[in-house]
Formats: sequence, structure tokens, C-alpha cells
Amino acid sequence: MDLGISGRWAILFGSSRGLGRACADSVAREGVNVVINGRTSDDVERACAEIVAAHGVRALAVVGDSSTSEVHEALVAACPEPDIVLLNGEGPAPTRFADLRADQWERALRQGLVGPVSFVQRVLPGMIERRFGRIVAISSAMVKSPNSMMSLSHGTRLGLSGVLKGLSKDVAKFNVTVNQLLPERFDTARQEQMAQVAMKVKGITYEQARAEQIASIKAGRLGQAHELGDAFAFMCSAQAGYLSGQSLQLDGGSYEGVF
Amino acid sequence: MDLGISGRWAILFGSSRGLGRACADSVAREGVNVVINGRTSDDVERACAEIVAAHGVRALAVVGDSSTSEVHEALVAACPEPDIVLLNGEGPAPTRFADLRADQWERALRQGLVGPVSFVQRVLPGMIERRFGRIVAISSAMVKSPNSMMSLSHGTRLGLSGVLKGLSKDVAKFNVTVNQLLPERFDTARQEQMAQVAMKVKGITYEQARAEQIASIKAGRLGQAHELGDAFAFMCSAQAGYLSGQSLQLDGGSYEGVF
Amino acid sequence: MDLGISGRWAILFGSSRGLGRACADSVAREGVNVVINGRTSDDVERACAEIVAAHGVRALAVVGDSSTSEVHEALVAACPEPDIVLLNGEGPAPTRFADLRADQWERALRQGLVGPVSFVQRVLPGMIERRFGRIVAISSAMVKSPNSMMSLSHGTRLGLSGVLKGLSKDVAKFNVTVNQLLPERFDTARQEQMAQVAMKVKGITYEQARAEQIASIKAGRLGQAHELGDAFAFMCSAQAGYLSGQSLQLDGGSYEGVF
Amino acid sequence: MDLGISGRWAILFGSSRGLGRACADSVAREGVNVVINGRTSDDVERACAEIVAAHGVRALAVVGDSSTSEVHEALVAACPEPDIVLLNGEGPAPTRFADLRADQWERALRQGLVGPVSFVQRVLPGMIERRFGRIVAISSAMVKSPNSMMSLSHGTRLGLSGVLKGLSKDVAKFNVTVNQLLPERFDTARQEQMAQVAMKVKGITYEQARAEQIASIKAGRLGQAHELGDAFAFMCSAQAGYLSGQSLQLDGGSYEGVF
Repeated sequence: MDLGISGRWAILFGSSRGLGRACADSVAREGVNVVINGRTSDDVERACAEIVAAHGVRALAVVGDSSTSEVHEALVAACPEPDIVLLNGEGPAPTRFADLRADQWERALRQGLVGPVSFVQRVLPGMIERRFGRIVAISSAMVKSPNSMMSLSHGTRLGLSGVLKGLSKDVAKFNVTVNQLLPERFDTARQEQMAQVAMKVKGITYEQARAEQIASIKAGRLGQAHELGDAFAFMCSAQAGYLSGQSLQLDGGSYEGVF
Repeated sequence: MDLGISGRWAILFGSSRGLGRACADSVAREGVNVVINGRTSDDVERACAEIVAAHGVRALAVVGDSSTSEVHEALVAACPEPDIVLLNGEGPAPTRFADLRADQWERALRQGLVGPVSFVQRVLPGMIERRFGRIVAISSAMVKSPNSMMSLSHGTRLGLSGVLKGLSKDVAKFNVTVNQLLPERFDTARQEQMAQVAMKVKGITYEQARAEQIASIKAGRLGQAHELGDAFAFMCSAQAGYLSGQSLQLDGGSYEGVF
Repeated sequence: MDLGISGRWAILFGSSRGLGRACADSVAREGVNVVINGRTSDDVERACAEIVAAHGVRALAVVGDSSTSEVHEALVAACPEPDIVLLNGEGPAPTRFADLRADQWERALRQGLVGPVSFVQRVLPGMIERRFGRIVAISSAMVKSPNSMMSLSHGTRLGLSGVLKGLSKDVAKFNVTVNQLLPERFDTARQEQMAQVAMKVKGITYEQARAEQIASIKAGRLGQAHELGDAFAFMCSAQAGYLSGQSLQLDGGSYEGVF
Repeated sequence: MDLGISGRWAILFGSSRGLGRACADSVAREGVNVVINGRTSDDVERACAEIVAAHGVRALAVVGDSSTSEVHEALVAACPEPDIVLLNGEGPAPTRFADLRADQWERALRQGLVGPVSFVQRVLPGMIERRFGRIVAISSAMVKSPNSMMSLSHGTRLGLSGVLKGLSKDVAKFNVTVNQLLPERFDTARQEQMAQVAMKVKGITYEQARAEQIASIKAGRLGQAHELGDAFAFMCSAQAGYLSGQSLQLDGGSYEGVF
């Protein structure tokens, strides 16, 4: 399937590893030039090199925390006219409701809500003017099924869900779409981290922790990062211009609700 | 993007024209052999011929009402081991709430709910056994935003939404996914028909009726059938095995709700 | 709290026992005259006698299947100008997806969708004219969390959910509200029946079946019928005229979804 | 209807005027003692005096911004063992997406999310220990239908919706319920403020602005504060212990979505 985006440019937050990296790979394979971002210079450089080698597109590196205005400036300096933006970032650590503190909230909200919104403000006028934009956030399946241990995560991500949905209504007429992907339990470093947490909290082995993760998924397996990457690529395609304001769950069919 | 389904077989209800036809085209382009169904022999034969000519796949014709067991038998006789099934059918005519009659309900429910469920019962065991299945229903955006004039439609389609969602939870572990597409206002014969209804009911011109349709869509245009076809193709892809139980709106960003 | 409905009349489907009976009790306590319906004459007569004795309101008996037009006629003959209508009926028996048959669908849809809608068509014009109406359906929590064993139930009830939601938008301006209650696991004969089913299907004891029911509820207990009755009474109150189109879950906090 | 809460204590944020005041009136009428909070001493004192005079319950005044820990301490000093908590606060001013600033986000999030969560953390252990708690937040219908002009509002309130939903699952077993009311267009000072904004933004008269507000509501009128107050009182009742994790819209039937 030709996605009709060869030659376009994408800025991808948190794309040196894991799900973000898979998104970068999927659109690069379709001929999209990418700006790779991550906190660790080595990871970012390696990702760029691998993408250039594999797909023959341009790949630029911007190292740093994607919720800061410094990094936002570096990103748009590298790519002043992005067609595609991926909002993505590490989720906060699981925390018991009773232990939530204001400083944790501030950090989570800055990274997961205020920072991403501010970057969208920056790139949106150009997308509107050029009559093409694909903004996609990697959120979490938890936004539709909150669990108190993840309050910092869904408390933040639901806010972003609402802001993006409201925004989507304003910009659809300019062929700028705004969507979310809601992953649950992909086989990435995040699930490794969650398994470590479960081992400590529940006093179980690594194998038990991983088995519990799998048991929670109706598909009977974890998701593979490339599956999310390809869903992202489809959402960014030319032919997805009529698809906006959606939050697509990639959860192995696990969500209980009808909608 | 390689969808990984070349050589597979799809049975598509109501695929001689409109959205169903676009779905057939999109998967045939990816190398999928198709069984085309419709009520008019000429339309079905023409669709088959065009698909064979364009994509070089096999295309078999089954003429008749896809809600009947006779047609179900003909479909599985033509293709005993379908990998992909598209549930699709004409929606019932708009009807005022006060005018709804039991016989209209019976027809709508048979065509939109009982018939499709019975066909899924027929093909599901094979999909489970073969560890691959992609069942997609073309429903309507109205299932999430009901409007009393369309009670026969959403009253029926919501029932199907629920049955398919329940089912999806059972079969995800066999790599059988069950999803829905919720289109709103695509540029097909259906919208022509709705425009004719609006002209009579509201006493407006054709141009006004079409302008009203466009005004109701945040994207400022109607959807194009191939946009839905390609979303269908993606949902049927090998890499969409972790995507199940979803109802994806293709509505030009028009749905008001956050989820 | 004064609900402002003393002297009004309610027609309550399936109100001789269980949740329907609790609804009748709750509004009768607030001074509402009631028409009690059920399939067994003794039950209906006993309910009427008890309600008259307890609350000093009028209580009329209409015996028969509330999905039939004969019973609809008897109900409106007994009470030509109802202010309140409760739509309620026994759910269909749990059935495996593979075993669903067309005749079961027809019965379930007639009882749970077509019959209730036809009764609403009958009483709605008077409610609109009198500028007061409270239509409430007892649905099921399952409409938001479908489970394939209950396809006949949620397949039907979701259809009704949609029809009632669409209708609610048209009639709010006449002070006619249309809402649903979505109960999960109340301590009634229905849960006894479900426990019997579970005993057979899973080969467990009665105590285990009941313990499983309780374990599925976050409140750690089953609901009490009067809790649903009082929620119904509140939805029927004069001061609930701004509350319409809602599906309120009474599920001990068990639903996973954020909305 | 006896709500079974006479003699209990409620702490109500933002309860000197508007919707919060109506909530205080409704529960005080049911015999609940109240702690009234607001930013203006005169308003708070007047509310207390009026409530004592009307309902014969105790009413304590705590003046100040309910998102601060100083006011939290004053509230629990006044009422160390609250049975009922109302989370409520003024929404942020409408702001165009392009004009959103980090400092506005910080204020909105502190007032609408971090502050309320921190107060719940403070009072929850006692509710759990005493096996009775009713936590209700006045949110906004906009959380389910976001509009970009209100991003600060729904961006914040959706976060709180998620946190409260997650929490509700943990505490239902202790007879502590956590719910939300989602009002749309009540006849309070807030709608006056919104009308003033509309006059400026759209260059319309006050009468036009008010007519637009009414036109947006399917009930054809604004809500009355006492209607929300009584819904709050019902949610706080003894018999509402099985109702938790719900977001009940009070919107004159205006929400488009089926759920």
C-alpha cells in the first residue's frame, strides 16, 4: 500500500528506542525523512545511522528532553516545516495513590501535557498553511481504563487526550489530523521496567511478572513495536486525511468496553 | 507498506459498489483474492472483471442478499476458507420515530444483525483453526451519535457492535481480530439517497442538501470511498493482529466525544 | 428529599418481582400510583396489594408479556396518561456464540427492543402534550462491557440504548426525559439463575458460584434491589428534568472504563 | 425519599455561591452539617447563616482558595471526619489554543487537578476506616465533548476524571464512592461570564449570547442550580453505595454520544 508520504518530514519525540523508534522506522520505510529525538546521544545517533542505512532517507538527531522549549527550538531548527509529529515520552513510574506528591504531578504534567501542547502550538500554523499535517500522540490504553497505581500517567494523558480532541475539530478542515494510539503491553523496555516493579511490589519472579503481563492481554501475547509503528504510518498516510480525533487502542483486544 | 496478506482470500458482503467495492479494491491491490457479493448480477460481474484486470487476483461472484442462508452457503461454497470477511449492507431508509413499524424492525435486524452474526458463526471455526482471521464490519458513525430518524439503522448496528465486541474478546488469542469501521458521509450512492430524502423532507434543492452534508463534516468535505477501503486493508493486514475490538470512526474528525 | 411526583402515574413493565418491583416500591413511596405488570397473576396481585397497603397509592394489575400489543393495550387502558414508564424484562438465557439461533434472536429482539419501542411510541405523544414524561429502561451493565455468552442480551439492549438515546434528543424540550439504568449483579432471582448456569457450565458449587459473583464486583457485595429502585425514583423526579439521555451504571464501581 | 445521611458532615469546596452552594443546600436540607468554602468572606458567612436558618444544621465557614494546603488544613481542622466531600472550583477562562501559556496550565492544573487530589489523599483514610465516604467532583460536560477554547478546563478536568475513576475501583469495597457530575450551562454566574466572553468575541448582544446558550441545550433552557444540588444529594445518599465511578451528565439531554 502506497501511503503517499514519500519525501515528507516527521519530527518524532522519544524515537531513539522502543515504540517511538518503531514509528520512525515505519514512516522512514515509506520514504519520510525523520528527526530522531531521545535523551541519550548514542541512542539517537545510532537510530539515525540505522534508519539512513535501511531506508535511504534523511535522519537528523536532536538530543534532549522533548518537553523543554530548548529542545523544541532545536527540533524546528532541524526541520522547520514538519508534516508529521509524533508526541511520545516515557511514562511516569507507578505510584500508589496515597504517595502521589505535587512535585511528581508537576513533572508528569510538564512532560506529558504542557510540553507536548506547546510544541503543537509551534508547528501547527505551518501545517495549516501547507494544508497537510499528521499529529499523533502515543498515549496509553490506561486512559480508557484507569488504574490508581498509574494516576500520574493517565491523569496526564487524559488531559492531553482532551486537548488534542478539541484541537482536532478545529483543524480537520485544513487536512491536519490529530489522533492518538493507545498501546497496552508492548514488548519494549517499558514492560521490562513494569516487570521489575511487579517483582518488587508483589514479591514474584521475573518469569511470573512477564507471565502476568501476557495473561492480562486477550491476544495471549505482548504487542510488537513494529505493529504500532505501522499503525502510526497508516495514520500519517495521505489517505488517512478523513481519520481524525480518534484514539485507536492497540491492546490485543483487551479493552472491555464496547467503545 | 507490505500488508502481508498477498494470496489470502476475502469474502466481502455488499462489495459490488460503494464502500464495499472500495474495500475489495484495496485488499485486491494487496494481492488478496476476493469473493464479490451484491444484489445485481451486472454490478457483481463488472466488479469482478475490473478487479481481475486491475490487480491480477482471483475474483468470484456471488449474487444475492447477504443476510440469507442461501447466499451464505454460496459464499462459502465459492470460498470455503476465507481469511477476511467484510460485513456490509445497505442501511435502512430514514424513518421518523413515530412511524417505526415491527415489520421494518424485523427486516433491518435480520439484515444488519442476525444475518451477519450467522455468517460469522459459519466461518469462525475455520479462522480459529487456521490461526488467522480478520472480520470487519462497516457500521456507521451514528452508532456513537444516534439520531432518531435513523433508529432502524443504529438500533440494529449497535446490537451488532456489541455482539462483535463480545466475540472479539474470545478470539483474539487465535489471531482472529474483529473490528468495525464507522463511516460518516462518504461520497457514495448512499449520500445521494440521503440527499434525495432531505430534499423531500426539508423542501430544499439538491445543491442545498449536498451543502448541508458537507457542512456537517468538520473536514469540510465528504469522505472518499478509497479512504475507507485503505483503512479496511490496514485492519486486515498481518501486522494488525494486535488491533481488535475497535470501532474506528472515519468521519472527517466530526465526532464530538473524546472517546 | 421531595421528588415532586406525588399523584403521578407510572406504568412499570416486569414489576411484580425483582428490580422492577423495587422501582414500583420506590415511586409508590413517593406518592406515585402504579400499574404493575408481570407474567404471573398471583405475583402481580400480591405486589399490588402490598404496595397499596404500604404506600396508600393506587396500584392496578396488568398480567401478561409486556412485549405484546395486547398487553400494551391493557396497560394504557388501565392508565391512559402515564407520566412515568419503566421498560424492563427478563434477559435471555446465556448462550454460547456458536449456539445462537435465529429464533432466539427474534424472541430476544421482540422482547427487548421492538416491543418496548412500540410501547414508547404509544405513550410518548401524551407525555409531550402534557409536558412531563420520565421514560427509564432497566438495561444491563453488559451493554458497555459485552461478553459473548450474553450476546442475545447486549445485542438487543444496545439496540435499545441507541434508539432511546436518539429519541431523548428530540423530546428533552418537552420535559420528557429518557434514561437507562445499567445494573450489574443485584441480589435478585436473576443472579440465582445465573448461579445455576455457572454451576452447570463450570461444575462448581452454589457457594462458589455466588462467591464468584461477589468477586466480580468491586464493592465486594451484590447490589440491593432498593438501591436501584431509589435511583429510578430519582430519575423520575420533577427535579431530574435536566437529566436525559444518560445510562447510569449501578455496578458497585466495577466498570473499568473512564466513561 | 429519605437519603439516610442526616447528621453526617460534608466539606464542600467552592460552596458559597452557584452550583456548590446548591449542593450545600440540598444536603443540608437532608440534615447534613456542612463546611462552606469560598474565596470571599462575606459570601461564605452569608451562605452559612442562610443554611443554618433554613435547615437547622451546623454550617462552618472556611475562607480561601481550596486548592491550597493551608485551606485544606483549615477544612479538616473544622471538620476532621468528613463523610462527604464536594470537589468544585471555578473553571479557567476560555482561551484560544494558540494563546495557551505554561503559567496558565500550571494554575489550572494546580486548582483543578493537583489540589483536589491532594485533599482527597488527606480525607480518604478516615472514610475508609469509617466505612462511609461520598466523594463527588463537579466537572464539566466538556470533558466528554472537548472544545479547543476550553482546553485549560477539559485538559485539567479529564485528568481528574481519570484519577478519580482509578481511585474509585480501589475504595468501593469500603463503601467509599467516587463520582462526578458533568453540568452543562446552568443558570449561574459562570454562564453570565461566558455570555460576556461571547459578546466580546462574537460582537453580539447580551440577549443574543444568552439565546445562543439556550439554543445549545436540547432541553431548550438552562439548568437550575437546585437540580444539580439534588443530584449531588442523591449521589451522597446511603442508598447510593453501589453507584461509583460514574460521570453523570446534567446537560438537558444535549450530549450527542450514546454513552
